[in-house]
Amino acid sequence: MSRIVIALGGNALGANLSDQMKAVQKTSKKIVELIKAGYEVVLTHGNGPQVGLMLDCFDSYKVNHDIDAFTMSVCVSITQGYIGYDLQNVMREALLDVGLNIPVSTVITQVVVDKNDPAFSNPTKPIGLFLNEEQAQTARAKGEHIVKFDEGYRQVVASPKPQHIVESETIKALLSAGQLVIACGGGGIPVIEQGNHLKGVQAVIDKDFSSAKLAKLIHADYFVILTAVDKVYIDFGKPTQKAIGTMTYSEAEEYIKQGQFGKGSMLPKVQASMQVVTENTNCVALITSLEGLLNGLEGKTGTRIIP
Amino acid sequence: MSRIVIALGGNALGANLSDQMKAVQKTSKKIVELIKAGYEVVLTHGNGPQVGLMLDCFDSYKVNHDIDAFTMSVCVSITQGYIGYDLQNVMREALLDVGLNIPVSTVITQVVVDKNDPAFSNPTKPIGLFLNEEQAQTARAKGEHIVKFDEGYRQVVASPKPQHIVESETIKALLSAGQLVIACGGGGIPVIEQGNHLKGVQAVIDKDFSSAKLAKLIHADYFVILTAVDKVYIDFGKPTQKAIGTMTYSEAEEYIKQGQFGKGSMLPKVQASMQVVTENTNCVALITSLEGLLNGLEGKTGTRIIP
Repeated sequence: MSRIVIALGGNALGANLSDQMKAVQKTSKKIVELIKAGYEVVLTHGNGPQVGLMLDCFDSYKVNHDIDAFTMSVCVSITQGYIGYDLQNVMREALLDVGLNIPVSTVITQVVVDKNDPAFSNPTKPIGLFLNEEQAQTARAKGEHIVKFDEGYRQVVASPKPQHIVESETIKALLSAGQLVIACGGGGIPVIEQGNHLKGVQAVIDKDFSSAKLAKLIHADYFVILTAVDKVYIDFGKPTQKAIGTMTYSEAEEYIKQGQFGKGSMLPKVQASMQVVTENTNCVALITSLEGLLNGLEGKTGTRIIP
Repeated sequence: MSRIVIALGGNALGANLSDQMKAVQKTSKKIVELIKAGYEVVLTHGNGPQVGLMLDCFDSYKVNHDIDAFTMSVCVSITQGYIGYDLQNVMREALLDVGLNIPVSTVITQVVVDKNDPAFSNPTKPIGLFLNEEQAQTARAKGEHIVKFDEGYRQVVASPKPQHIVESETIKALLSAGQLVIACGGGGIPVIEQGNHLKGVQAVIDKDFSSAKLAKLIHADYFVILTAVDKVYIDFGKPTQKAIGTMTYSEAEEYIKQGQFGKGSMLPKVQASMQVVTENTNCVALITSLEGLLNGLEGKTGTRIIP
């Protein structure tokens, strides 16, 4: 039985609930094919737009209401709850539609980060929706880190590297029982260790790195990052553009040095794949699109990262 | 190995995050004693204050922002996420503090209700905080059902009876793997069946009834409702007040006819206990306080409901 971790793109889930439902339905049909083919599947997902929305919503409400601060870690747990609910519901239905009565569930997942991670002093992870100039100014006045992207302004937060998935034994137990699991939502709830205590911190962990860590901890055979393109490209958008079928760790290193992969888009996906093949050498790392998923596992499309 | 479902009172979790953290810490120490004594434990919990807060928060935000409606079922999933995060974190720490490295997790739980349940045309379940007269008028104008209680006005919503716990096989698998599970938060996400599809509905299921249904489905040996008092009383607050040690199903029926138990407080707890001993005759049903938990299981305090 092959075990597979599939990371669904955060933006691919849609920025609002109705987009999310449509996107997730399309995804579910592909995942069902994997399960029919006998794979043990863990789904992970991002939450960039959603966690930004939650933070803004509670911030706005707090102005006129006496409520506690809903911190970033609490907001991540909230997005795990409602995205997970939707995902598990749609996956259950898609499985039943093909006659598979396989339990599906969402595990609220905490991910330990290092309190000394340099990311805390250098926020890079975009969250929430794009802002216009006026909204960007207001957000800056509230103390948020705002960065200008091509598409507009956006809040960025610290994105420390995952050290450990707290609930990995739960995920393993469910996979071993033949169940489908949704975990590490939004990269996991970011916590630091203080003795036996886990303290939530202001950060959003990259879901690709958390998924890579999970792939190591549960001894996955495949690690797949689903994104908008079927393959990773070099010289993307240039006349010399070239799709990559297989890329070794050192080739990937070289491309990164050349600045081939966009920060906050393809770069972390390639880096997370490099992490997997280093930490779990039996694991195949694949970057492809939803459409390329099955063919990609058979080696017919997608980009494989190898040690 | 005895399997036990423990329903934690919604208001006992506290109306805000800091109260919640204190209340949960106290609770965790008692639960650890049970686990040390060898019980397999599922914790369930209410979400009355929290789900009302979420609904109000998203309603307020929607006035000035273009977001989808965060329906009641989505809001329940949100409270499962953030209350679960806190509970699993505190339970993990309390277990590690006594040297027990037992995985703890929260399972996002959907609960099927009957779309023809008479509760949909007769809302009775209080949610959110108490309102003053002006707030009550505003809420009524928004179409909410507002009822006057002794302590003030409060929104009430439909509370249909649970028919099935969708994720019961997940909960069972984790218990069988020796793990501690948090499930059925806020009574579960209320859904109705439409073929293979589960559709969220505007309702909040009573957590005691959902927990009773769970106790049946996972073949629990004990079903415990933790509340503010160590025992159930008749003639409560009168000179003839009497604590009940054991109450048969038919005695409970008679007390209910006499109006001995407060609607929305002790009545659903007694009714849920009656449901358990009818549906799962091997299960002991117990109503007691957190302090009475261990003694109650040994038959030294609390109120037992027997067939």
